[in-house]
Amino acid sequence: MAVAVFEDALLGSLFGDEAVARAFASERTVRRYNEVEAALTRAAQSVGLVPDAAADALVALLGDFAPDLSDVAEGTLRDGMPLPRYAALLKAAAGEHARHAHLGSTSQDIIDTALALALAEVNAIYAERLDGLCLALDRLSAEHGRRALMGRTRMQAALPITVADRIRGWAAPLRRERERLDRLRPRVELLQFGGPVGTRRGWDGHGDEIAAHMAQALGLTDPGEAWHTARDGLGAYAAWLTQVSAALGKVGQDVCLMAQQGIGEVRLAGGGGSSAMAHKRNPIDGELLITLARYNAAQLGGFAQSLVHEQERSGVSWALEWMILPPMCVATGCGLLTAQRLLDAVEVIGAPEGTVFEGDG
Amino acid sequence: MAVAVFEDALLGSLFGDEAVARAFASERTVRRYNEVEAALTRAAQSVGLVPDAAADALVALLGDFAPDLSDVAEGTLRDGMPLPRYAALLKAAAGEHARHAHLGSTSQDIIDTALALALAEVNAIYAERLDGLCLALDRLSAEHGRRALMGRTRMQAALPITVADRIRGWAAPLRRERERLDRLRPRVELLQFGGPVGTRRGWDGHGDEIAAHMAQALGLTDPGEAWHTARDGLGAYAAWLTQVSAALGKVGQDVCLMAQQGIGEVRLAGGGGSSAMAHKRNPIDGELLITLARYNAAQLGGFAQSLVHEQERSGVSWALEWMILPPMCVATGCGLLTAQRLLDAVEVIGAPEGTVFEGDG
Amino acid sequence: MAVAVFEDALLGSLFGDEAVARAFASERTVRRYNEVEAALTRAAQSVGLVPDAAADALVALLGDFAPDLSDVAEGTLRDGMPLPRYAALLKAAAGEHARHAHLGSTSQDIIDTALALALAEVNAIYAERLDGLCLALDRLSAEHGRRALMGRTRMQAALPITVADRIRGWAAPLRRERERLDRLRPRVELLQFGGPVGTRRGWDGHGDEIAAHMAQALGLTDPGEAWHTARDGLGAYAAWLTQVSAALGKVGQDVCLMAQQGIGEVRLAGGGGSSAMAHKRNPIDGELLITLARYNAAQLGGFAQSLVHEQERSGVSWALEWMILPPMCVATGCGLLTAQRLLDAVEVIGAPEGTVFEGDG
Amino acid sequence: MAVAVFEDALLGSLFGDEAVARAFASERTVRRYNEVEAALTRAAQSVGLVPDAAADALVALLGDFAPDLSDVAEGTLRDGMPLPRYAALLKAAAGEHARHAHLGSTSQDIIDTALALALAEVNAIYAERLDGLCLALDRLSAEHGRRALMGRTRMQAALPITVADRIRGWAAPLRRERERLDRLRPRVELLQFGGPVGTRRGWDGHGDEIAAHMAQALGLTDPGEAWHTARDGLGAYAAWLTQVSAALGKVGQDVCLMAQQGIGEVRLAGGGGSSAMAHKRNPIDGELLITLARYNAAQLGGFAQSLVHEQERSGVSWALEWMILPPMCVATGCGLLTAQRLLDAVEVIGAPEGTVFEGDG
Repeated sequence: MAVAVFEDALLGSLFGDEAVARAFASERTVRRYNEVEAALTRAAQSVGLVPDAAADALVALLGDFAPDLSDVAEGTLRDGMPLPRYAALLKAAAGEHARHAHLGSTSQDIIDTALALALAEVNAIYAERLDGLCLALDRLSAEHGRRALMGRTRMQAALPITVADRIRGWAAPLRRERERLDRLRPRVELLQFGGPVGTRRGWDGHGDEIAAHMAQALGLTDPGEAWHTARDGLGAYAAWLTQVSAALGKVGQDVCLMAQQGIGEVRLAGGGGSSAMAHKRNPIDGELLITLARYNAAQLGGFAQSLVHEQERSGVSWALEWMILPPMCVATGCGLLTAQRLLDAVEVIGAPEGTVFEGDG
Repeated sequence: MAVAVFEDALLGSLFGDEAVARAFASERTVRRYNEVEAALTRAAQSVGLVPDAAADALVALLGDFAPDLSDVAEGTLRDGMPLPRYAALLKAAAGEHARHAHLGSTSQDIIDTALALALAEVNAIYAERLDGLCLALDRLSAEHGRRALMGRTRMQAALPITVADRIRGWAAPLRRERERLDRLRPRVELLQFGGPVGTRRGWDGHGDEIAAHMAQALGLTDPGEAWHTARDGLGAYAAWLTQVSAALGKVGQDVCLMAQQGIGEVRLAGGGGSSAMAHKRNPIDGELLITLARYNAAQLGGFAQSLVHEQERSGVSWALEWMILPPMCVATGCGLLTAQRLLDAVEVIGAPEGTVFEGDG
Repeated sequence: MAVAVFEDALLGSLFGDEAVARAFASERTVRRYNEVEAALTRAAQSVGLVPDAAADALVALLGDFAPDLSDVAEGTLRDGMPLPRYAALLKAAAGEHARHAHLGSTSQDIIDTALALALAEVNAIYAERLDGLCLALDRLSAEHGRRALMGRTRMQAALPITVADRIRGWAAPLRRERERLDRLRPRVELLQFGGPVGTRRGWDGHGDEIAAHMAQALGLTDPGEAWHTARDGLGAYAAWLTQVSAALGKVGQDVCLMAQQGIGEVRLAGGGGSSAMAHKRNPIDGELLITLARYNAAQLGGFAQSLVHEQERSGVSWALEWMILPPMCVATGCGLLTAQRLLDAVEVIGAPEGTVFEGDG
Repeated sequence: MAVAVFEDALLGSLFGDEAVARAFASERTVRRYNEVEAALTRAAQSVGLVPDAAADALVALLGDFAPDLSDVAEGTLRDGMPLPRYAALLKAAAGEHARHAHLGSTSQDIIDTALALALAEVNAIYAERLDGLCLALDRLSAEHGRRALMGRTRMQAALPITVADRIRGWAAPLRRERERLDRLRPRVELLQFGGPVGTRRGWDGHGDEIAAHMAQALGLTDPGEAWHTARDGLGAYAAWLTQVSAALGKVGQDVCLMAQQGIGEVRLAGGGGSSAMAHKRNPIDGELLITLARYNAAQLGGFAQSLVHEQERSGVSWALEWMILPPMCVATGCGLLTAQRLLDAVEVIGAPEGTVFEGDG
């Protein structure tokens, strides 16, 4: 047992995903705040709101600004988010340039943009893994696809199919989700920039210019307005994470059913042991994929509750996002790793080509 | 109290949506089975699998085939779905042409395609209503947009904004969802065609031709393969329904908060009464929008659980879809109607242009 | 497809439960409003707030008061609930006694108390069915209990058990839920009585006396105060419905797994057919039990979102209850019926006593 | 951003609960495995299955057995749970007494019993905090209870009440949940003991004696049989966590609404700041209580999905519990801490006694 399985010393090996988790690590989050503040400073400089010397000094400071995390955490307790204290410490460190730091921005501008940067990193990981999985499925089909399998509907033997038929059903949604990821990325790798009440007024009328400059520097899309309360991009993203996990869950569910004694349609290398029964080889990875699919499905329901943001900023809904979205990302990443491991472990799948199934098949 | 609020004699006026509900009515569902069977028959005729006379006779029969619903319902109890008994009754009615009816198809081909047709009808309704809502928001902004409003973040007065600013935040996600609907429709207005185990084999090798012919006739997209277990299109659709409902929920939440005594930022015509307090005017429609948003958010979590379909057909997950998706559609439709009614009831919103807010604003 | 499967002409035979649904029918709901109003009138009479003649006349009127439902429904749309218009029509019908009708009460007092009466009716049904199911499990164990079964853990054969062992695992939670129902009933079969803002003031200081009198007359518990916003009893009840459904879902899941070709641990009479494959006998009822368990699990997540009621009455959360709770009740009732049908259909379960399982078992 | 907010360096100060989190820490979990194994050893000794010397040696070893966590974690990845590797390392450390260690037990016996011990620890914390909260509410009512407040229903001013009325509505459900906790504890502080397939056979017929002995030693209840697949106690517990969180969420929601400018019904000490608007004091703790209520409501929906355990042990559902339950516990604990802090911060609540509210009140 652990509070959160993802990074636990006992369970993290199974439920975790180091690469995705790293994108959400506290230190990296602070570094992203730094990047966003630096981009803001340069953008404000470019429209003449920050003198060159101040901008240079601030950007230099932000290059390795590392505030005491426990100090920031105390601020989080007081302010409901880490940014106000972070910004105060940044200004303190900026000395004479303090008034040019965090210029005209609101906490949500920085925090959401830092999230967008984290998701960009995570999405690159997903894209690569999905490509890998599709390749692995192609290879599996090339090697075993012509072997015979009893097609099963409603948990009953129906008519014979081939292993390629079954694998096609696994691969098709994954390929579609892979394509969707490309279309989805610009909707979440999105600059947040609006100022205190999200209007982009302030900055002497240079708000849009600053935003465009920042987006360019950070490799994000500028949506042209703040999305402080319009979380539809994140909502679609959470749905996508869930759909990927569900597609992997189907693979896991099928493998678990195929691995049953009496069915014996797949043979896996490795597999889990039991403390009581040495002869058992459990299809651990198949089970885990189902667990992760059900986990993300439940989290999606929670995330959807966070979509209603009242007025110009909702502390309630925003904090609910923080609680739910990163675990969904890690669970999705873990599923991709697990599916790859599961496919790699397949030694035999299906029956020899030409097998005639008896009786009720 | 009613089992389901949507069509109840006491509550349906508030929670219902006659137009959307009609698309899911039993009689209309049977009529859609007829349409799909007729399209199958013509398609099979076109590749020479059904003689012209038989095809003509079957299509004529299907023009007004109306099996006894209670007979079909008995079949549902036995078979887990209405189609086997429907198909048996169709064959019985077809007499000498029986063997040409429901040719090579499986229940899921017919049921899912009929659902796709229902969703096409529903989507046209949504498109029109979303257009209307966006117009209504534009009009509201044109009329009241320059009036003053206290921007509020985290439930506290922040800085003054305009009514146009607030409305922009309402309209932006609705406009995006409207555009997404166009992109989403081909993913759910989708022919289902695969045969018993979803392979499109059978039909003497004419499966793909038949599918293309059917899709064309029915105004649906042919995905090129069966999607018996790949419900990603429906999953994305359920997420979209939820996002629309959430965007409307934000409007409702904001209006409820604006309508509070002591805040008084909106005045609505009509509004609900109380059996005990005649002086009260409740912002019923605003509340309902929040309820519907939370309802669909919860249903999305349930729908996501249905995304894992095992093997070649999952009775479990498929039936879960039937329980969850149509109520989501009606709740979404109801939200659109309610939001329109709410906007139409706005008499005054915001404070006169140039209002200076005091003290803590 | 139907908006709601529970009472649909095509699907209601499978997903419905006439007895439970009847408890939520509109006409019966109105009759319960009548009963609650009559009890209020008698109680108010007993403390001298309503003259005898007026009380007699009102109670006589309420004996068969049947307002036009479409008129009430128009009121629902306007007021957000049916009661204000119902009460207005009642007063109109009461003529000279109008001012004695609905005395000092608020809509929620009547609506929630009517719900409590509906749940009392439903709970009696559940109690009887759970008793029946426990008996059926005992009989099944008595008949087949000594037969052999491969115990399976993590989807893999583990060690041999008996059929009695498996059935014990099915029965134990159902027996516990049966006992819990008795303890839970007083927490939901609960008089709601508080007046406009839930304080039980008004009624010239006779609020508590009136409440006690009403509770006695209606066969409900008087909690001693209003529970307008304290929905913990209903929350625990929704959790109970879900737990019953889950316990039945386990039975269904196990039966589906046992019924697989290649496993063959159970033989069922009847079972569903396929429109394409006449040889298939699907374990429809087993699947349905899993579907219902997952449905109620998702609804519980939604119900839990409704538990936060703001201030003295939440229109948002209350309406969410109306949308979610009755379907949960019917799904639970349907599960109990389905499980009974499934157990009755078991012809053989397990292998002959003394069977030695081979190899990997 | 952090993967899990609960123990994060930036966010854990707000979302965390050190005391509850400690109960789930990896090292403490291993220590609990040790305690359970020691209790098993002593119990087996008491029925003569383990020689005294071996028992003494094993118990001594278990007193500070601290296997390498990364070694155990590798086992988790392989076996789907930490126990098989932990048990193997224990046996290796036990040397000549190896065959007496982990005697006849299965991984789930140890892991679930260790969870029961963790929950016992957590429940003691909850009990104390709930007592403290009820006291705080009493004090608040004693101090401010007679002050005036506008009662509000459906977000609209209704009739005047007192602060005591409002607080009574906050306290009542918390008091009931406090009582329920006492009744609930024996259902989750529960020995798990069944052996490989949950039958309590093995141990030369001493299974029940061993279980009774272990339960006594560990301060747990012996349910008389294994509950490997019967998770109804945990389900009821998850519902309880959610109900507590919801009751606290109502307090938070009410305080946020009371703290609005224009309403001004409460004045809080401290409160959150903004990086952009120094004049703002956000009711952070009130918002957080709503967030936590919505979080746990969503998790409950997920936990309910885990209630269906197939056959004699479900790897899928069991792992889903591990993912969901501990975060729910910490969120609940955090809510109790936060509510206490919020109540302590109340400086003024309501209007002076005798205030007459104007107009629409």
